[in-house]
Amino acid sequence: MASLDKVLDKIDANLDASLGRLFKLISIKSVSTDPAFKADCAEAALWVADELKGLGFEASVRPTEGHAVVVAEAKASRPNAPHVLFYGHYDVQPADPLDLWETPPFEPRLANTPTGKQIIGRGVADDKGQFMTFVEALRAFKETGELPCNVTILLEGEEETGSPSLPDFLAKNKDELKADLALVCDTSMWDRKTPAITTMLRGLVLEEVVIHGADRDLHSGMFGGPAINPIHVLARIIADLHDDQGRVTLPGFYDGVAELPPDIADQWRHLPFNEKAFLGDVGLSVPAGEHGRSTLEMLWSRPTCDVNGIIGGYTAKGSKTVLPAEASAKFSFRLVGNQDPDKIAAAFRDFVRARLPADCHVEFISHGASNALQLPFASDALTRARVALKEEWGQEAVLAGCGGSIPIVGSFKHDLGMDTLMIGFGLEDDRIHSPNEKYDLSSFHKGTRSWARVLSALAQ
Amino acid sequence: MASLDKVLDKIDANLDASLGRLFKLISIKSVSTDPAFKADCAEAALWVADELKGLGFEASVRPTEGHAVVVAEAKASRPNAPHVLFYGHYDVQPADPLDLWETPPFEPRLANTPTGKQIIGRGVADDKGQFMTFVEALRAFKETGELPCNVTILLEGEEETGSPSLPDFLAKNKDELKADLALVCDTSMWDRKTPAITTMLRGLVLEEVVIHGADRDLHSGMFGGPAINPIHVLARIIADLHDDQGRVTLPGFYDGVAELPPDIADQWRHLPFNEKAFLGDVGLSVPAGEHGRSTLEMLWSRPTCDVNGIIGGYTAKGSKTVLPAEASAKFSFRLVGNQDPDKIAAAFRDFVRARLPADCHVEFISHGASNALQLPFASDALTRARVALKEEWGQEAVLAGCGGSIPIVGSFKHDLGMDTLMIGFGLEDDRIHSPNEKYDLSSFHKGTRSWARVLSALAQ
Repeated sequence: MASLDKVLDKIDANLDASLGRLFKLISIKSVSTDPAFKADCAEAALWVADELKGLGFEASVRPTEGHAVVVAEAKASRPNAPHVLFYGHYDVQPADPLDLWETPPFEPRLANTPTGKQIIGRGVADDKGQFMTFVEALRAFKETGELPCNVTILLEGEEETGSPSLPDFLAKNKDELKADLALVCDTSMWDRKTPAITTMLRGLVLEEVVIHGADRDLHSGMFGGPAINPIHVLARIIADLHDDQGRVTLPGFYDGVAELPPDIADQWRHLPFNEKAFLGDVGLSVPAGEHGRSTLEMLWSRPTCDVNGIIGGYTAKGSKTVLPAEASAKFSFRLVGNQDPDKIAAAFRDFVRARLPADCHVEFISHGASNALQLPFASDALTRARVALKEEWGQEAVLAGCGGSIPIVGSFKHDLGMDTLMIGFGLEDDRIHSPNEKYDLSSFHKGTRSWARVLSALAQ
Repeated sequence: MASLDKVLDKIDANLDASLGRLFKLISIKSVSTDPAFKADCAEAALWVADELKGLGFEASVRPTEGHAVVVAEAKASRPNAPHVLFYGHYDVQPADPLDLWETPPFEPRLANTPTGKQIIGRGVADDKGQFMTFVEALRAFKETGELPCNVTILLEGEEETGSPSLPDFLAKNKDELKADLALVCDTSMWDRKTPAITTMLRGLVLEEVVIHGADRDLHSGMFGGPAINPIHVLARIIADLHDDQGRVTLPGFYDGVAELPPDIADQWRHLPFNEKAFLGDVGLSVPAGEHGRSTLEMLWSRPTCDVNGIIGGYTAKGSKTVLPAEASAKFSFRLVGNQDPDKIAAAFRDFVRARLPADCHVEFISHGASNALQLPFASDALTRARVALKEEWGQEAVLAGCGGSIPIVGSFKHDLGMDTLMIGFGLEDDRIHSPNEKYDLSSFHKGTRSWARVLSALAQ
């Protein structure tokens, strides 16, 4: 561990200079969604590529239909070193509303607060400060010796606009990007003192259903009674989708949904998660959903079914006694574990068709389907990362789930055959996408140290 | 019956002159909804009042906030003659689209068709030709002797715009308008050869429900599972409102709903009603609704519950994984017999409240409530009118229901304490509100004769 100690010392010694580089990057207004900042995005890509070249990387700025992708590679001198692909993004959200910022968003500064020093500036937590923890860790390895792993870095400039160019870029550069493991630094810690590794991302099946009845809207006085009402048909389908225990009733829905390993269940049970505060923050007080499941379980490791939108008939002010010709709803299923999105979409369509009365027909529109992602709890990389993080933070890393989906991680799994280790140092109060975005100095400093430990552990 | 025969002969002899007067009335463009025709509406009111003065009526044009009301009165010479109030409207729908008319809408003409002669022109069936059958019957009485009844005539000019001025007018002129019985000529025959008396109008309870959950829209990835979804709550309520036999499940909903008298049930059972054609015309093939009830029963004498509109969450193109803060629906209940609108509205609200899970609250908006109207089957006036119509047409009059509501009939019942005899000579193919509106010459001629017989029968 002598060489790792040197690396960690170097990180500590570099901190001021590291911060200077991060401040420079934040000052480049790489707002991807606004064409007015196109040149700034190009400047950010170039700046990052130059930084990586300065560390001995072979780095290039690759044009796309939108903003450029930066790709950089460097090899460890040691043979058989593992190969990691690191992903981050150099683009940021717009800074509006500007008048709510205490200081200009692209003029980063350090602020003293009761919980420690914070770096303030647009994009510092999402994702510039986060990916720079990884870059600064690489710098410390380089300045004290050699990289422990072969490293490829992929930085895109369109994450905040839905990554439109990335799938095509990945498809065209598979061989170059394929590694043993992907690393992403775009997630959060459990709390200020407890690191987290996100090991579960829920998948998604999106289905829109349009129920058609009569061939036109009818007057409910002239036809009410004998004419079928598509809103009633749709309501029955929605009501039937859950039983009185909050479980989804689609046949086969829970196939591939495993119970948590006892140690993880135990870890979650003992996390200081304030369910009352979590729900109270949005005006709720008790968890709905599956009976007998904790809120964290429901968010991280249980599948759900929700209607995200419904419309039919007359919806403006007042009343109109119409029997509508159609009614429609948008359904989403959040998936976990090994649930099969195609099977679930098919089971859903069968479920709907089985509930269609005479004279109704149905139209289905798919808005996409993706598998859940699960980094196996027994994965060697995960085990090593857990040890490394515990050494840095003195606390077990929480093995967290994420209720939403992160498309790039799905692409890494399905297109490049790689698992992803998601380790980030963001905090809940970072105000990402909002005015006065911040990143704790401890996140930046100990995040950099954490990556040094993780890379070193992966290379053992 | 000698004097009635003279009246009927006079009607036959007058036919050409009667048509001439109707043509003149149709040529006045009394489109109530379009301010450009304000002067035409005033002209129509004046023309009608003058016609009635010519028949010896004391007639006046009464201004309102909108278009004028015509009120006319004449007494029978015989003491103790019954007093009837006749209601009709002199305003018509706009004629657009003009290019679909075969001849100009306000230049009436007679057309020969395979089923007989037709009068063509805007408003001829709705309601000018219909109310002129009554006026021409009065003329024949006057020209051959005396009126058989005391007659008050009320003609409004805002029926096609929802009669905004009428409730206030009725309230202010109660004493003048109160009679023993109201007569309305604005409905249809069963078919070209079979008269009909509309004896049942369904009532209506209109309730809007807004279900609120969290205090803002939530991301279904971040909250899906533990956060309550108001669309699900609303769907469950809608689904619970009907049982698997198509009956409404509100406690007490069927209180006051009587079975049909056996003779009426028998009449309806033997009516040549083509259920397949009725439903097929709007793209349906089998009746939905209450099991074991015929389509006519469901339309005319059974109560219903329908959702006329529903909305919640994201309803534009594509998908958005939102858990909406609220969802709302508009409900209508069609009532029959002695169902109590207030009790049903209260039962509905209790029903909804009983299905609210924790953290949801509900907002109710009433859009109105009205009783069903039922002319008692044993009513003396109804019995006399049935005999009179059978004499004219050689067929039993169908005692029909009407799925919709006719607000003026409710006002006559509740504000003036009068039952209404609704006898009209329209036919299903009259194209009311559409281009080339027509009224069969036989409807006009035999309709006039029918009123002579009915008035005579009421006076016996």
